[in-house]
Amino acid sequence: MSPFTGSASRTEQWRHLRVDLDAGVATVTLDRPEKLNALTFGAYADLRDLLPELARDGSVRALVLGGEGPGFCSGGDVDDIIGATLAMDTGQLLDFNRMTGATVRALRECPFPVVAAVHGIAAGAGAVLALAADFRVADPGARFAFLFTKVGLSGGDMGAAYLLPRVVGLGHATRLLMLGEPVGAAEAERIGLISQLTAEGEAPAAARALARRLADGPALAHAQTKALLTAELDMPLAAAVELDATTQALLMNSADYTEFHAAFTEKRTPKWQGR
Amino acid sequence: MSPFTGSASRTEQWRHLRVDLDAGVATVTLDRPEKLNALTFGAYADLRDLLPELARDGSVRALVLGGEGPGFCSGGDVDDIIGATLAMDTGQLLDFNRMTGATVRALRECPFPVVAAVHGIAAGAGAVLALAADFRVADPGARFAFLFTKVGLSGGDMGAAYLLPRVVGLGHATRLLMLGEPVGAAEAERIGLISQLTAEGEAPAAARALARRLADGPALAHAQTKALLTAELDMPLAAAVELDATTQALLMNSADYTEFHAAFTEKRTPKWQGR
Amino acid sequence: MSPFTGSASRTEQWRHLRVDLDAGVATVTLDRPEKLNALTFGAYADLRDLLPELARDGSVRALVLGGEGPGFCSGGDVDDIIGATLAMDTGQLLDFNRMTGATVRALRECPFPVVAAVHGIAAGAGAVLALAADFRVADPGARFAFLFTKVGLSGGDMGAAYLLPRVVGLGHATRLLMLGEPVGAAEAERIGLISQLTAEGEAPAAARALARRLADGPALAHAQTKALLTAELDMPLAAAVELDATTQALLMNSADYTEFHAAFTEKRTPKWQGR
Repeated sequence: MSPFTGSASRTEQWRHLRVDLDAGVATVTLDRPEKLNALTFGAYADLRDLLPELARDGSVRALVLGGEGPGFCSGGDVDDIIGATLAMDTGQLLDFNRMTGATVRALRECPFPVVAAVHGIAAGAGAVLALAADFRVADPGARFAFLFTKVGLSGGDMGAAYLLPRVVGLGHATRLLMLGEPVGAAEAERIGLISQLTAEGEAPAAARALARRLADGPALAHAQTKALLTAELDMPLAAAVELDATTQALLMNSADYTEFHAAFTEKRTPKWQGR
Repeated sequence: MSPFTGSASRTEQWRHLRVDLDAGVATVTLDRPEKLNALTFGAYADLRDLLPELARDGSVRALVLGGEGPGFCSGGDVDDIIGATLAMDTGQLLDFNRMTGATVRALRECPFPVVAAVHGIAAGAGAVLALAADFRVADPGARFAFLFTKVGLSGGDMGAAYLLPRVVGLGHATRLLMLGEPVGAAEAERIGLISQLTAEGEAPAAARALARRLADGPALAHAQTKALLTAELDMPLAAAVELDATTQALLMNSADYTEFHAAFTEKRTPKWQGR
Repeated sequence: MSPFTGSASRTEQWRHLRVDLDAGVATVTLDRPEKLNALTFGAYADLRDLLPELARDGSVRALVLGGEGPGFCSGGDVDDIIGATLAMDTGQLLDFNRMTGATVRALRECPFPVVAAVHGIAAGAGAVLALAADFRVADPGARFAFLFTKVGLSGGDMGAAYLLPRVVGLGHATRLLMLGEPVGAAEAERIGLISQLTAEGEAPAAARALARRLADGPALAHAQTKALLTAELDMPLAAAVELDATTQALLMNSADYTEFHAAFTEKRTPKWQGR
């Protein structure tokens, strides 16, 4: 537990997500398979709150985000969410949309890499959650559909109009967000939307293996790599070079950097501590 | 017509472009086929002025930009433009170059998607006009040539050094802008410069079909998707997420969003109104 | 020599790099082949200082960066650098990391294009030096490895977390910087990391030919293209369009632009002066 923990109590049970912790790897599973893991208000709120709580916990070094059943996530539930928003006033609509955006910020800003295990459909908000992860491990049946315009909304939802051009370029991003058509795994890999394409059915296991490797490796180095990638999208070159310099000067005092040199000198594998 | 129209009168005839309006789809055709649609001062000025006028009109929901004859556009006319600029003083040179840049801003900032129908050559300013569109529908004979350095000028012309790295990445953009070599359709598709590759000769028809689909669909959602993609290239993540949230809260009061839910509930196709 | 040269004396001998000048083309060779051109403190410092000095010289119009022997550059020397940093205090660590970052800024900000000739391994700082070049000419045996996390450091080193997402997109960049695995030439070309793939063993000659072509061509136009590509990554669209306009207005007074028009009119090849 971080020493910088105040009075806020730990959540005893995450009711809208399944959360498993295993030696530095957290696995978060969207678990409404009968609805293709359609998101509810509760699932969004739990995602938003879970990630900072895991960060305070301090023991999590990598996170897998996956979905139970035949698909990853079909997006916001048409009945539970779209129907409900039709009855909301302006303030409530803003609160709701800020909450969904906050889940994306939490994924980008948490101090550990996030590996999305994508199989079957990743649609709407589900596609954006996968997009906000650091890695998208997907199998050949994976499909991404940024289908917001198909329900009459902006393709820029939850930061998608910021993130997608930075992942696949402005041309592809415009096409995907404006038309909302599904993108299969082959095209997703070709345009840079998939980090690792696995054999059919192997995405969850491959995602777990990647998270395990990240957690067991130089985890502080991985965390800072993520933080710099996120921050430097919004920084000019000169400032980014300075941020890199201060970060490396900091990490050159880390246990893992010392250990690397000792292991190299002794011709053995480093024993990473992640700090 | 927008209620926010002042005293400025409507242009009765666009003398340097062909402009057709058809139920929400505007088609702008560069029409000097004997010169491969080389741009003149008048053509630039008309493009700069036409797009805001169409925006004020309010009825346009998608626009096709194409070229008559054997190619899309060969760029600024060597005689009419390069020759003329050699006689200009500093203020005139700046006026001219601001005008060409203003056409690109008009394409990126108009409140409807722009579909470039590219066949044959898109060179110089013609390549940048296509680049500034939201979609590039091209056939296998299309060629893009950012040939500015070949006339002794900067490859960064009309925003090309801003846009191209955001479409194809900095490596490809450097090569294309610095060397000015033509890029064929196959490579253009591979690096993300083409949105849709058609059969030979089919680019104009496919571009019209796409514009028709955009205009007949949830056009306000398309317009906002474009606006957010354009704006969020220049925004940090946190601000982009907030802009998405306010945009969706706004659109959740739109007629099309209500209609989507009604149609979904009644198991029928939505009747989009574009507002 | 630039008239804007002050009291600083010219460096008589670059002791940590091989530097050759040939009619506008500078060739900088990392020359410790027995160590795969591992970088030393001296090599970093010379790279940082050489590029501004060549800029002051004024005669250099393109630069080739290559490595002697079986590879391009294996990165910072494990003994000479990693070992030494373990004994440094905070201020020294910051000085060192600012120096390495300064080499990348020098490569991006020097007023001539840089062509990296990559064969064999480009690892760690070597991969970032190649990344900071304007062109990466590589042969099929080239391999890029951003292996910083493998020594316990941040993948964001010397601006890599800024540059790599802008070259290959955020998804690929995250994978490459976080995992540090080598990327072969075929994948590097597919994701946009290579500008030109040559036949085996042909990278150095092809890089020289490209630099020669750049130096003998409209070199001022090339220099401004580079300056705008670098600057406009950090600028919003409207400002970029204005910068392009002022740049073109400036270059429309250049000797090479006048020469292009004269040559075109006289149906002959332009004689570029590079100014």
